[in-house]
Amino acid sequence: MVKHINVTSRSRTEFIDITEAVREVVKNSRVTSGVCHLFVLHTTAAITINEGADPNVMRDMNGFLNRLVPTDPYFTHAEGNSDAHIKSTLVGGSETIFIDEGRLVLGTWQAIYFCEFDGPRQRKVSVKVV
Amino acid sequence: MVKHINVTSRSRTEFIDITEAVREVVKNSRVTSGVCHLFVLHTTAAITINEGADPNVMRDMNGFLNRLVPTDPYFTHAEGNSDAHIKSTLVGGSETIFIDEGRLVLGTWQAIYFCEFDGPRQRKVSVKVV
Amino acid sequence: MVKHINVTSRSRTEFIDITEAVREVVKNSRVTSGVCHLFVLHTTAAITINEGADPNVMRDMNGFLNRLVPTDPYFTHAEGNSDAHIKSTLVGGSETIFIDEGRLVLGTWQAIYFCEFDGPRQRKVSVKVV
Repeated sequence: MVKHINVTSRSRTEFIDITEAVREVVKNSRVTSGVCHLFVLHTTAAITINEGADPNVMRDMNGFLNRLVPTDPYFTHAEGNSDAHIKSTLVGGSETIFIDEGRLVLGTWQAIYFCEFDGPRQRKVSVKVV
Repeated sequence: MVKHINVTSRSRTEFIDITEAVREVVKNSRVTSGVCHLFVLHTTAAITINEGADPNVMRDMNGFLNRLVPTDPYFTHAEGNSDAHIKSTLVGGSETIFIDEGRLVLGTWQAIYFCEFDGPRQRKVSVKVV
Repeated sequence: MVKHINVTSRSRTEFIDITEAVREVVKNSRVTSGVCHLFVLHTTAAITINEGADPNVMRDMNGFLNRLVPTDPYFTHAEGNSDAHIKSTLVGGSETIFIDEGRLVLGTWQAIYFCEFDGPRQRKVSVKVV
């Protein structure tokens, strides 16, 4: 069964920690051993797993990606958000996380982030527990 | 069971929409609820999910990647296609997509692309429906 | 059941071939048809599948990534390893590989690499065979 996590972004580019929301879906699924698949239904957003302790890490990531993929005069896509589409492909829109003894298996420092590249918007992440 | 989708690329770098071919494999599998895994058996190609409506998006993506990873004089790999290997790792060679009510769960604007980085060639994408 | 592969890195940035270790886990699982999920429990490392024949390919990849994501004066994360976190998100920390007739389905030139971006360290890759 596919569940959805709603995410509200407030900036054009932003990383939003959705770890607790994913844990909640896993808990409610009552699956004790398996995998949890995450999938973003958008083409200007992504999912990544990275450090959850120091918010400067994701601030540095955001700054780096904005310098790497600027809103480029070479781009031809009329909506003017090709940079967001490119970041989406570079970071990737899905993750697969293990479930063991009813809990997500994440490393000590790992958190799950929804990556907004063309906000602010209302977004959805699909979750499937198997 | 593993199925294969054959892809023929016509340029050195190119994004080829394989959404319909993947839908066909899912339909023939008769799986109504599950996941569809895609995997590229090559080291100079990749898979991504991005906008299917305006072809300028993938044109911008191709141009950006070609500027980001040029055929660099620093490279030592004798075949001269290290740029293609690097793009393959940056974009990634697999995807996992949900199946619900017998259909691929994709967002309104999402299409599945085979990414050719060292064509033209005959290529294969492996598909497994679970 | 989740198994772990131990990896010892010897440089700050390095690609370590773990294909044989993964094959061993798959063989011991006695699963003949399914998928093998790999997941890195760290935020400054990654997993990729790329060429296993010529070591110059991964040397070129390492050099390219080090030039793409330098230890940047813009970064604010106090540990000074934001470059490693960024590479981890760009390359991605998981892979899903098919199993057919009890064997990993990899292309002729494909090998599985643990990507160290902040070594030398003792590392762990989680493996789940389904």
